[in-house]
Amino acid sequence: MSDGIVLGDNQYGKAETRLVRIYRDTERHELRDINVSTALRGDFSAAHLYGDQANVLPTDSQKNTCYAFAKQHGLREIEDYALTLGRHFVHDVEPVHGARIEVEEYGWERVPVDGVGHNHTWTRRGTEVRTTVVTVEGDQACVVSGLRDLVLLKSTGSEFAGFRTDPYTTLAETHDRVMSTSLAARWRYAGTEVAWGKTWASVRTLLLSRFAEVHSLALQQTLWEMGRAVLRDHQEIAEIKLSAPNRHHFVVDLAPFGLANDNEVFFPADRPYGLIECAVTREDGPEACPAWRAVPGFA
Amino acid sequence: MSDGIVLGDNQYGKAETRLVRIYRDTERHELRDINVSTALRGDFSAAHLYGDQANVLPTDSQKNTCYAFAKQHGLREIEDYALTLGRHFVHDVEPVHGARIEVEEYGWERVPVDGVGHNHTWTRRGTEVRTTVVTVEGDQACVVSGLRDLVLLKSTGSEFAGFRTDPYTTLAETHDRVMSTSLAARWRYAGTEVAWGKTWASVRTLLLSRFAEVHSLALQQTLWEMGRAVLRDHQEIAEIKLSAPNRHHFVVDLAPFGLANDNEVFFPADRPYGLIECAVTREDGPEACPAWRAVPGFA
Amino acid sequence: MSDGIVLGDNQYGKAETRLVRIYRDTERHELRDINVSTALRGDFSAAHLYGDQANVLPTDSQKNTCYAFAKQHGLREIEDYALTLGRHFVHDVEPVHGARIEVEEYGWERVPVDGVGHNHTWTRRGTEVRTTVVTVEGDQACVVSGLRDLVLLKSTGSEFAGFRTDPYTTLAETHDRVMSTSLAARWRYAGTEVAWGKTWASVRTLLLSRFAEVHSLALQQTLWEMGRAVLRDHQEIAEIKLSAPNRHHFVVDLAPFGLANDNEVFFPADRPYGLIECAVTREDGPEACPAWRAVPGFA
Amino acid sequence: MSDGIVLGDNQYGKAETRLVRIYRDTERHELRDINVSTALRGDFSAAHLYGDQANVLPTDSQKNTCYAFAKQHGLREIEDYALTLGRHFVHDVEPVHGARIEVEEYGWERVPVDGVGHNHTWTRRGTEVRTTVVTVEGDQACVVSGLRDLVLLKSTGSEFAGFRTDPYTTLAETHDRVMSTSLAARWRYAGTEVAWGKTWASVRTLLLSRFAEVHSLALQQTLWEMGRAVLRDHQEIAEIKLSAPNRHHFVVDLAPFGLANDNEVFFPADRPYGLIECAVTREDGPEACPAWRAVPGFA
Repeated sequence: MSDGIVLGDNQYGKAETRLVRIYRDTERHELRDINVSTALRGDFSAAHLYGDQANVLPTDSQKNTCYAFAKQHGLREIEDYALTLGRHFVHDVEPVHGARIEVEEYGWERVPVDGVGHNHTWTRRGTEVRTTVVTVEGDQACVVSGLRDLVLLKSTGSEFAGFRTDPYTTLAETHDRVMSTSLAARWRYAGTEVAWGKTWASVRTLLLSRFAEVHSLALQQTLWEMGRAVLRDHQEIAEIKLSAPNRHHFVVDLAPFGLANDNEVFFPADRPYGLIECAVTREDGPEACPAWRAVPGFA
Repeated sequence: MSDGIVLGDNQYGKAETRLVRIYRDTERHELRDINVSTALRGDFSAAHLYGDQANVLPTDSQKNTCYAFAKQHGLREIEDYALTLGRHFVHDVEPVHGARIEVEEYGWERVPVDGVGHNHTWTRRGTEVRTTVVTVEGDQACVVSGLRDLVLLKSTGSEFAGFRTDPYTTLAETHDRVMSTSLAARWRYAGTEVAWGKTWASVRTLLLSRFAEVHSLALQQTLWEMGRAVLRDHQEIAEIKLSAPNRHHFVVDLAPFGLANDNEVFFPADRPYGLIECAVTREDGPEACPAWRAVPGFA
Repeated sequence: MSDGIVLGDNQYGKAETRLVRIYRDTERHELRDINVSTALRGDFSAAHLYGDQANVLPTDSQKNTCYAFAKQHGLREIEDYALTLGRHFVHDVEPVHGARIEVEEYGWERVPVDGVGHNHTWTRRGTEVRTTVVTVEGDQACVVSGLRDLVLLKSTGSEFAGFRTDPYTTLAETHDRVMSTSLAARWRYAGTEVAWGKTWASVRTLLLSRFAEVHSLALQQTLWEMGRAVLRDHQEIAEIKLSAPNRHHFVVDLAPFGLANDNEVFFPADRPYGLIECAVTREDGPEACPAWRAVPGFA
Repeated sequence: MSDGIVLGDNQYGKAETRLVRIYRDTERHELRDINVSTALRGDFSAAHLYGDQANVLPTDSQKNTCYAFAKQHGLREIEDYALTLGRHFVHDVEPVHGARIEVEEYGWERVPVDGVGHNHTWTRRGTEVRTTVVTVEGDQACVVSGLRDLVLLKSTGSEFAGFRTDPYTTLAETHDRVMSTSLAARWRYAGTEVAWGKTWASVRTLLLSRFAEVHSLALQQTLWEMGRAVLRDHQEIAEIKLSAPNRHHFVVDLAPFGLANDNEVFFPADRPYGLIECAVTREDGPEACPAWRAVPGFA
């Protein structure tokens, strides 16, 4: 273009393909429930500049591939499923040199009947979602797994004091408060040969137990302790990023009604909320993943 | 008014007061997390016709009362809490002759640390919500408890065949399908002396086990069986109403890709969905609850 | 059943069928965008008690009918469309004696290009939704139209003072506040021969102008004035019901920072909110609509 | 730490502070309605590692600052407001060397009464949101403005044909389809001296008119044409990024009912949806903004 305007980063794909996979080889069925989004990267200039689709595999075909692969290659661990999908697009579809596959998994638990989990009946478990983002670029792949919407609350064991003040500070210090969050965590694996499910469960347990056990002087400290515990126990994890809204629980002033309120009655506010974000990483860790490329956008 | 236009049914109140109550008498804290809505009924004509507030207790005071009562009278079972609030408004606030108190409760479970539930740390349990609507009218009270967003799925044991057809019917019969719903149930108690929590848990167990165990020829049949099991085991329940979206899980056609799909890969659709609603009641049951009055609106 | 447990009210149908209808007879296209829910009533006992579907027209067929009728009978006014659907189910499907058809319509406006609305390009207009609920029972029909999510705010001209107080009252009086709501209104027509679109637009204009012009001593008063204006100008409307959350805008205390705040900076809270609901009706109005029957449930 | 585990990128702040600013100097009030999120960057290691808050300005103080500045410095254009906030945190709060301020603005239009916009009554306009993200790092600042949730539809003038196929392709070509999206656009300004409001309105007009006027062979092409038009007319804009879900409108097959459907009746699907993302930039454009730094996380 003589006007000096050029196409920059771009990708396209099918977002939020909902998919349930049932394993029914025995009477005791197994269930996977996911939401998968695919995005392809390559030279799609002609589609943008001239509307020429010759290089564009329809997003509908990407959706079909998600369904077909759930049968053909199976769907046990979302990381394996996403790696298989991503490598397929990059290796088998001519103009594609990179792919980003994002999967969310919703947990289910067996309905107990007379104390035993039923063979083919489930109820949704918790609010939390297991996630993975796999990026493939040529022969390399990067796996970032995680969880979101893990809602936590501790009714004591949290302080906030000794903080910096400025002319706009009116907050009082507290040495005993409710601390609650809806945690999002994402961790990058150093490789792709990992016991995905087992590791995910172990990370989750570490996050929960650190949240419970750390006497918290700040949400920052709790996040750091959570991230550090994960890296310490899992050499296969290169770094972890944590994002934690501080879901404020305000102590209601009951004095006008002649009542004490010793951290017993709270108003949990919707908005605004504090938002604490940090990465915990390794001094001598692996380089940034070569297959990683952010989505176009200004995060 | 000489124009023959008159005020009809009306009520006003504070909706969605979020409240967390911590019991911290011992090191092992207890937690209640609710959303409460109050609505008052009485002669509020002057407020409507002339803007005269002399009879109007502010919704802000109603909110304050919710908080104060959680301390003063405690918050263990939401039905008791709602009854206490409703009776207070009706008996203690002069112009009020009726009240509707709606409470939603969100469940939490203790975070396990080394296999033991932690003393003061919890995570949100499930997607489901426990509900109650208490209406008080003078000296009478009506309690309708329930649950919503109980998401269920069975991967077999459900048919849909032999149905009526018309010129707009294209659906094929099936003798094996996925059946999934997000159940809402509300049941009306015959009285107000009930072991609320224990009964609620028992009803929930009955609903779950009937959903699991009934071989379903139709969602209607499953709902009826669920409702009947509840009424059969709980004489203290006068009637139950069930509302169940049929969350369609469509078998994906993999034949174009040379793959069989024997009820293994499904597309769970968002919309539209079937919606099945029914009441299960008693032939010789108690009369409609005298304290019950619907909200103004056309449901 | 010898256990005295019986089936009560019930209905079933297809909810939230999304449908867009384009009229393209000329280069200047027309657009309708709706969400339609159908529910059928009749003797469906066999489906509930024995899983016998012989009388059950699938909800999938109901969905197909919605699409087919949008072509066959057209979709101009949602009330006409819903009446045609409802009468079809009641008159043409053997076991059905009643139907409830609910339609939501989303508004679009033409994208202006060089000051002229484009022939075939639109953008969504506003947050508000036009609604209708049509119930048919045998030869009779009842039409309740309305709107919801009409978000309004006035920055002055609203007071709240002289209200009742009790021991839980801490609210201060105010003679100048922000008043904001997200209005839902539903009005019942006396008959079915109405200029639907024209009347709907006129009602909307009346609601808006009364909200703007009434100096409000209470939200109750504003609602009454809105409803009265509608009934006064529209003899074809039998009654109107209004539901208005009071979206509180709290004046932020800037005094700690040495700043005045003369109703200039507000915190609009999410929850809780006041909720004011009322019906405005006619002294000598028509009887309650014989075709009206509430959905099963405890509103 | 001797374990080689270190703190990585981090930031913290107050998210989603809702704020309404009324200008009431004359009888004709003005209104701004925003949602502001602040995030501070600097050396907060002590807070993470030891829970030492000495360097941490509470998020509550940040919220207070948002409110105070809306009075003290005013709130006319969100970009100016965000720049003022960001520079304040960086220059006036000791340990802070970077800040990210995100503002969303909700549009309102005056309620027309007798054809004239009312002095102090408004209704929410459209679904769309005006956005800005301002990052300040030391003495430098970067402004990225945009919009989201701009819902668009064209009922003809869109094709999708000549695309690549693979074994998973079943989609048919089309030369006339509905194209609909909910556009998100973000553009980076080359500097900070800009007529923000006027430019924003001009960009919006360009986006709308290109969407309307381009005969689209692919959504990619439409996005490119939109982006190019913006860069061509606005030298003050360095680059623009566009994200457009393809909200599929499927032609309903009415043949089983003996009806033709010449692009008249559509099913608008919720999920999955195509998602097309691209950047349009300048060959010889300014370097990447030095004040820009992504949030911690894996986008």
